[in-house]
Amino acid sequence: MPTPHEMLIRVRYCESDQMGIVHHASYLVYLEESRTGLMRHLGIPYEGVEARGIAMAVRKVELRYRAAARYGDTLRLATWVERCGAASITFATEVRHAERGDLLATGQVEVACCSIAEGLRPMPLPDDIRDVIDRHRSAEPASGES
Amino acid sequence: MPTPHEMLIRVRYCESDQMGIVHHASYLVYLEESRTGLMRHLGIPYEGVEARGIAMAVRKVELRYRAAARYGDTLRLATWVERCGAASITFATEVRHAERGDLLATGQVEVACCSIAEGLRPMPLPDDIRDVIDRHRSAEPASGES
Amino acid sequence: MPTPHEMLIRVRYCESDQMGIVHHASYLVYLEESRTGLMRHLGIPYEGVEARGIAMAVRKVELRYRAAARYGDTLRLATWVERCGAASITFATEVRHAERGDLLATGQVEVACCSIAEGLRPMPLPDDIRDVIDRHRSAEPASGES
Amino acid sequence: MPTPHEMLIRVRYCESDQMGIVHHASYLVYLEESRTGLMRHLGIPYEGVEARGIAMAVRKVELRYRAAARYGDTLRLATWVERCGAASITFATEVRHAERGDLLATGQVEVACCSIAEGLRPMPLPDDIRDVIDRHRSAEPASGES
Repeated sequence: MPTPHEMLIRVRYCESDQMGIVHHASYLVYLEESRTGLMRHLGIPYEGVEARGIAMAVRKVELRYRAAARYGDTLRLATWVERCGAASITFATEVRHAERGDLLATGQVEVACCSIAEGLRPMPLPDDIRDVIDRHRSAEPASGES
Repeated sequence: MPTPHEMLIRVRYCESDQMGIVHHASYLVYLEESRTGLMRHLGIPYEGVEARGIAMAVRKVELRYRAAARYGDTLRLATWVERCGAASITFATEVRHAERGDLLATGQVEVACCSIAEGLRPMPLPDDIRDVIDRHRSAEPASGES
Repeated sequence: MPTPHEMLIRVRYCESDQMGIVHHASYLVYLEESRTGLMRHLGIPYEGVEARGIAMAVRKVELRYRAAARYGDTLRLATWVERCGAASITFATEVRHAERGDLLATGQVEVACCSIAEGLRPMPLPDDIRDVIDRHRSAEPASGES
Repeated sequence: MPTPHEMLIRVRYCESDQMGIVHHASYLVYLEESRTGLMRHLGIPYEGVEARGIAMAVRKVELRYRAAARYGDTLRLATWVERCGAASITFATEVRHAERGDLLATGQVEVACCSIAEGLRPMPLPDDIRDVIDRHRSAEPASGES
């Protein structure tokens, strides 16, 4: 597992529901923020990918909710690339309470590389993007973190 | 005032917040549903407007919240065109509890006619759309409804 | 598989994203609408469940996106109970384009029965709710539909 | 006008719509983030207000959209209290592009002080909250900023 990219997200009031917890659909938004944060960190910001005519459309999602987040909480998201195929990337994310550190949710999201000009038709991942992802995946976590 | 177009919207669970009521931002979505419902009813569905290269971008919003809506409620929205300028349309909406009938919110939304090809630059409202709006505005409410 | 409960949902404009398709997080909202629609159809509306002090918190989600939905589309969701445990229910949903009939997405959502008074602590499913779910699960689809 | 409280918000992908711009309803969420940020800055975080049994329910909203924000943009929000009544507070916010500095939107949001225990019945603003707001309002902007 490569060193995850970390991001802090403060829960927004509108993300709570009448159960008094963060609505489960908000986690898909948090994961999107976190994986695009990783891409930006790797030098391939997603707005630049789309500017090249490439969309990364979500094809598959798996999420497990382990404990509730609430308004007033700040979340720490750690995201890394779990798999990189010929035309898709699978990102994994752990969501923890930023202060207490307990695990709130885990998720995997698979995105498919698509041509915007051809109506989101699947296409191979460009070599330069794959190279960046491969370097991220082969980077060893710093020893202090393992 | 022309005969309003009516639409029923059932509150979604995710639209509630931890106050136990519908979050105030959801009403902008309800108003959007209601005014595009009016446009569809008038024979100018918004997806068809965009297909002609015209976007109707929101320029101004005013909303008053008078009583709370809750999950489990169904809302009745009544929408009409309040004003039609050279390049903009102002829609007005009343939101009522569908069963009890009490007024929950009122709002006005002004949309500006914009050219999609020219980066959302303002443009005059096409004549055929204005004609449809004008007929809607001059139609007398049926006597039984007034 | 029991006879699924069907619901039509029209895509809202705000559910589209700049890729020109429905944002993937919106499907979790659609699935929530569809499974609470099934519960209402079975005589156990979710607002009534919460009024008894029971929340059904989402514990796990799996979603596969097969084709894009767009603004202007109406979706047909078919939802049924796939599994009913001692303290949880797994709902399955198929999302199709209402007119064309092609499959757009499939998903499973597991909800856990929780006590609202005890801070969403897991609790067994009440017998009357389980009975209703069991009857739904054992009902044969009408022959014309299989 | 008191010194506004500033907050940076990066546009999320899901906040874009198929017009390629930030959907207008997202600004209500941004304004909520910004005014709760001001309250936190003033030492009265909103989660603490609700913990005392007081909700600040939105009663009125006015928003003007002057230029579009897009995915990839970071926004700078400046928020201050424009008016403080016996039972309500009106917040004003300017939304600018963080790098270019141009004005994207302005808004006012009036919130009413409500008792959570009494079904969100209006109640007077507690003295300690009013005192904090009054000090914020009477604070002179630093000379370098005016």
